[in-house]
Amino acid sequence: MVEKSINYPGIFDEIAAKLPGIANHGQVASYIPELANVDPDKFGMHLINYQGEHFSLGASDEKFSIQSIAKVLALTLAYSAEEETLWQRVGVEPSGNPFNSLVQLEYEQGIPRNPFINAGALLVSDILVSHLKAPKEDLLAFTRKLCGREDIHFNAKVAESEKRTSYNNAALINLMKSYGNIKNDIDVVLDFYFNLCSIEMTCRELAQSFAFLANYGVNPLNNEQVVSASKAKRINAIMQLCGFYDEAGEFSFKVGLPGKSGVGGGVIAVYPGKFSIALWSPKLNSKGNSYKAIEVLEFLTTKTQLSIF
Amino acid sequence: MVEKSINYPGIFDEIAAKLPGIANHGQVASYIPELANVDPDKFGMHLINYQGEHFSLGASDEKFSIQSIAKVLALTLAYSAEEETLWQRVGVEPSGNPFNSLVQLEYEQGIPRNPFINAGALLVSDILVSHLKAPKEDLLAFTRKLCGREDIHFNAKVAESEKRTSYNNAALINLMKSYGNIKNDIDVVLDFYFNLCSIEMTCRELAQSFAFLANYGVNPLNNEQVVSASKAKRINAIMQLCGFYDEAGEFSFKVGLPGKSGVGGGVIAVYPGKFSIALWSPKLNSKGNSYKAIEVLEFLTTKTQLSIF
Amino acid sequence: MVEKSINYPGIFDEIAAKLPGIANHGQVASYIPELANVDPDKFGMHLINYQGEHFSLGASDEKFSIQSIAKVLALTLAYSAEEETLWQRVGVEPSGNPFNSLVQLEYEQGIPRNPFINAGALLVSDILVSHLKAPKEDLLAFTRKLCGREDIHFNAKVAESEKRTSYNNAALINLMKSYGNIKNDIDVVLDFYFNLCSIEMTCRELAQSFAFLANYGVNPLNNEQVVSASKAKRINAIMQLCGFYDEAGEFSFKVGLPGKSGVGGGVIAVYPGKFSIALWSPKLNSKGNSYKAIEVLEFLTTKTQLSIF
Amino acid sequence: MVEKSINYPGIFDEIAAKLPGIANHGQVASYIPELANVDPDKFGMHLINYQGEHFSLGASDEKFSIQSIAKVLALTLAYSAEEETLWQRVGVEPSGNPFNSLVQLEYEQGIPRNPFINAGALLVSDILVSHLKAPKEDLLAFTRKLCGREDIHFNAKVAESEKRTSYNNAALINLMKSYGNIKNDIDVVLDFYFNLCSIEMTCRELAQSFAFLANYGVNPLNNEQVVSASKAKRINAIMQLCGFYDEAGEFSFKVGLPGKSGVGGGVIAVYPGKFSIALWSPKLNSKGNSYKAIEVLEFLTTKTQLSIF
Repeated sequence: MVEKSINYPGIFDEIAAKLPGIANHGQVASYIPELANVDPDKFGMHLINYQGEHFSLGASDEKFSIQSIAKVLALTLAYSAEEETLWQRVGVEPSGNPFNSLVQLEYEQGIPRNPFINAGALLVSDILVSHLKAPKEDLLAFTRKLCGREDIHFNAKVAESEKRTSYNNAALINLMKSYGNIKNDIDVVLDFYFNLCSIEMTCRELAQSFAFLANYGVNPLNNEQVVSASKAKRINAIMQLCGFYDEAGEFSFKVGLPGKSGVGGGVIAVYPGKFSIALWSPKLNSKGNSYKAIEVLEFLTTKTQLSIF
Repeated sequence: MVEKSINYPGIFDEIAAKLPGIANHGQVASYIPELANVDPDKFGMHLINYQGEHFSLGASDEKFSIQSIAKVLALTLAYSAEEETLWQRVGVEPSGNPFNSLVQLEYEQGIPRNPFINAGALLVSDILVSHLKAPKEDLLAFTRKLCGREDIHFNAKVAESEKRTSYNNAALINLMKSYGNIKNDIDVVLDFYFNLCSIEMTCRELAQSFAFLANYGVNPLNNEQVVSASKAKRINAIMQLCGFYDEAGEFSFKVGLPGKSGVGGGVIAVYPGKFSIALWSPKLNSKGNSYKAIEVLEFLTTKTQLSIF
Repeated sequence: MVEKSINYPGIFDEIAAKLPGIANHGQVASYIPELANVDPDKFGMHLINYQGEHFSLGASDEKFSIQSIAKVLALTLAYSAEEETLWQRVGVEPSGNPFNSLVQLEYEQGIPRNPFINAGALLVSDILVSHLKAPKEDLLAFTRKLCGREDIHFNAKVAESEKRTSYNNAALINLMKSYGNIKNDIDVVLDFYFNLCSIEMTCRELAQSFAFLANYGVNPLNNEQVVSASKAKRINAIMQLCGFYDEAGEFSFKVGLPGKSGVGGGVIAVYPGKFSIALWSPKLNSKGNSYKAIEVLEFLTTKTQLSIF
Repeated sequence: MVEKSINYPGIFDEIAAKLPGIANHGQVASYIPELANVDPDKFGMHLINYQGEHFSLGASDEKFSIQSIAKVLALTLAYSAEEETLWQRVGVEPSGNPFNSLVQLEYEQGIPRNPFINAGALLVSDILVSHLKAPKEDLLAFTRKLCGREDIHFNAKVAESEKRTSYNNAALINLMKSYGNIKNDIDVVLDFYFNLCSIEMTCRELAQSFAFLANYGVNPLNNEQVVSASKAKRINAIMQLCGFYDEAGEFSFKVGLPGKSGVGGGVIAVYPGKFSIALWSPKLNSKGNSYKAIEVLEFLTTKTQLSIF
């Protein structure tokens, strides 16, 4: 068996050459105007390896709505706060169903299948509202420290638009409340949740924020242990199995890295011990994941055999 | 970020010391006499690393019924025969349901969710019956070559017992046939399937048979490319997401390696680029996976941070 | 084939003699204090036949919370307002599931299976909020006219308690809103719905209110056509198939009359062309229907062959 | 309230005049050649009232495949044999799902929802195989006596064709067997079931066979009590709630009589105390019930208010 070595600049050059030929299929998310109005042809990617080298392509320094990717940050905070008792209130199994399914939640009596389906992220939000003194500010402070940048904010318009259209999330949280699995006031939790999903970042900031998951829990910027190595492993495992809704298998199969997507077109992926990478391309495939970001990641891992598998 | 190195002998010594203190909870599979009569206290494990070193503990040279673990071997053969068209007839997504669920199969109109739930393995069996001249003999020959041992056989009594009790598999295959997704005679496919699940191996043979999946598709015994590196990656990804029925998330979360279990109490896991490991302990947890084998693997990967994540 | 004749006084005497020997199994509804505090041993029944004769037993003149029985009155009003277009927004099929199931509602994309499951009654409420000038007052006026009594009111405490505990209904209506099948403000519809379910009546008033459904749509008190004979037939058919949640088959099987129950322990049943009958006994069986009321009705229809079947 | 009287000859004249104007939508069942080759424009109807008068229209003396209608006859026999213990092995609730759904059967652990979905009829067949000395012959003898005609037979070609295509029924019975709810050999039960569904009758024979259900359990031809009045009521109740698959609500709503359909295009309906009526028109609506037969029945009951409701 042979250890793999990675020629990062060469790979980025190859991808840069390849990019114009990769189709940009799919549809930009249209359920709120702030997402619908994004330029569908935007593309950015940024990789940080374990030596601390940075590689980027395209609009890697442009802010976009990271949406559900922020659920991983919320999970990290909640896991630190609750330790292993967290798993009494939310599972770690793939859902096998669309991300906003009430069916499973009802069948399993208000215990969300995992922290990345909407119900699970609402549950995690409830936990943070219980634990944090100033939940929204504390979340921003945590995120800023992870990526070493002060310039991380919620987008109030996005949060507001989500709130106006999100009857399905209201259904989910009410159902969990009916089973006693939501402890705080529903409106407070929903407000936190919609702000969480409205965070904006660049690919560079995103890759930096997730570097601790590629580094056994240690933030490489300041060598602080964000979470234990065991917790980092477990968060990665959950991303691997649940990070792409009902396309988790397809993503694992094609890309072979733990990762998470958002309907803003962002994708984060980490290779433990090697690198973290963020991509952004707004058009989504039928499962709600960025079409082009996944294509590029598949090319990256297949051509270069850069996969955990 | 730091590269990990592994002290295999030290880990095995530590596990050996730890073993007497690990509880042996659960129940031996009892639906056929051949499994019910196995000594519940048997334990074996065998690891082969990329340098070709072997490490073992307990009854690692005793044959046991590998059961569903053989589905990975069948998938490997079928994937080679059908290439990517295989995925038109079987999916790669976790099931989110028990391994023998008809519900999902009906909901998805006869396309099994993945190749490791029973329906998926029956579908793979149908493909092999279509492709192989002498399906049962060819499967044995393939397995023997993988592990470099001639002494690999079906257990006719096990196959016969399975056949007598397996109304659920008959339901599954009839349902798929009703959707046109089974091409061969039902009895022929079932006969192949029941034989597939009756293969007997030792931990050593099992670890050797799966070494190609830890070695980017190459059989380290003879340096033959069993499947391409890309296919090996994909088979590992499917094991990661679907290898432990509705406990796949739990196994990933705890152990963090792609693997597969069988109701005979066997578990195989691979760390691509590093090692393959087989364990055997007959008592099963409530999800049908070996209780003790998973405990030991979790200890191995958590203590030593030997995980792909 | 022989026409049946009915000796009402004889039947009531027989039931009166039988009553002490009929067990009073089950549990009083306990999710709100107003229901939990009702005397569990209360029993009343009242029958009005097509000659306008009245027969009663027990606490037939005592008010109780008719709860879901009021859904039939709401349906009658909505059906009159919308005519057959009503059925584009709500179905007429039995649910095959508990009355508050989100599963089916999601599977069928926000179209409730029938008007008597909670989702369906919320939908009917939305229609009435659209059509009526003063929805709550108009509903009371309609009900008062049906039973010829001014003394019909909502119970504000009950409505308030329901509102405080009813996260499941909030989940249902939000889900329907997410599918675009709720037109009005959610809080307004919920307020109407909780008031609807808080109506209090006596058995006598209830039997009188439903007499038009036993009389081909004509209110026997004033000979007004409340709904057409065809609509009355259809409302009865829906009661027959959907009036007892997932015990509709059992109720039809045992009692053989169209009817509707409420968690307050009330049951209404009609025999078209013959009579309407209301019963009240607060203890509920495991399906949420009055245990004793159904026992007595079964005795009535089985012994005397008073069934539509 | 007013007693209804029926002018049968007048109604039949009106229907005869109306018939040419009633569309003949839908598709003839095509899964076996024997059904596919039937003339799609055939139409027959036959009514027998409680005075023993006969009224007919069209091809009322032509044999057709009664298919699932025969399930009512099988249920009648099984109910007589098992009495109320029958309901421990099969339910009486509407399915809320297509007639051949495995989902519900698995969810409810091998207990079919009711005797008229395929699983339920297979279960009833199993019971008859247990109870009858010569199941197929005894079933024919029972049916012949009901309609007073010797000329009632299975169609061997139909039974054979069903057997060749019916993987779904094989799935259902294997699933029930896996739950221990099938006692006899699967092939024997399936053979009985396929013969049961192959019975051929004319509308006249069919109406006569079901007259006992319109006559409180008494066969009007010979005044024999086929089943008790209570059992007749219960069978009618089950027909009302479960006789038209997932269109039971729609049929009750439109027609308002207990009835049963078959994919051969036959429909039987009974008005207890008044009449039994059989119709035949081969083209089926999307739910698998005869389009034209239901239209005509709806006209009959709506125009003349001939409904139990």
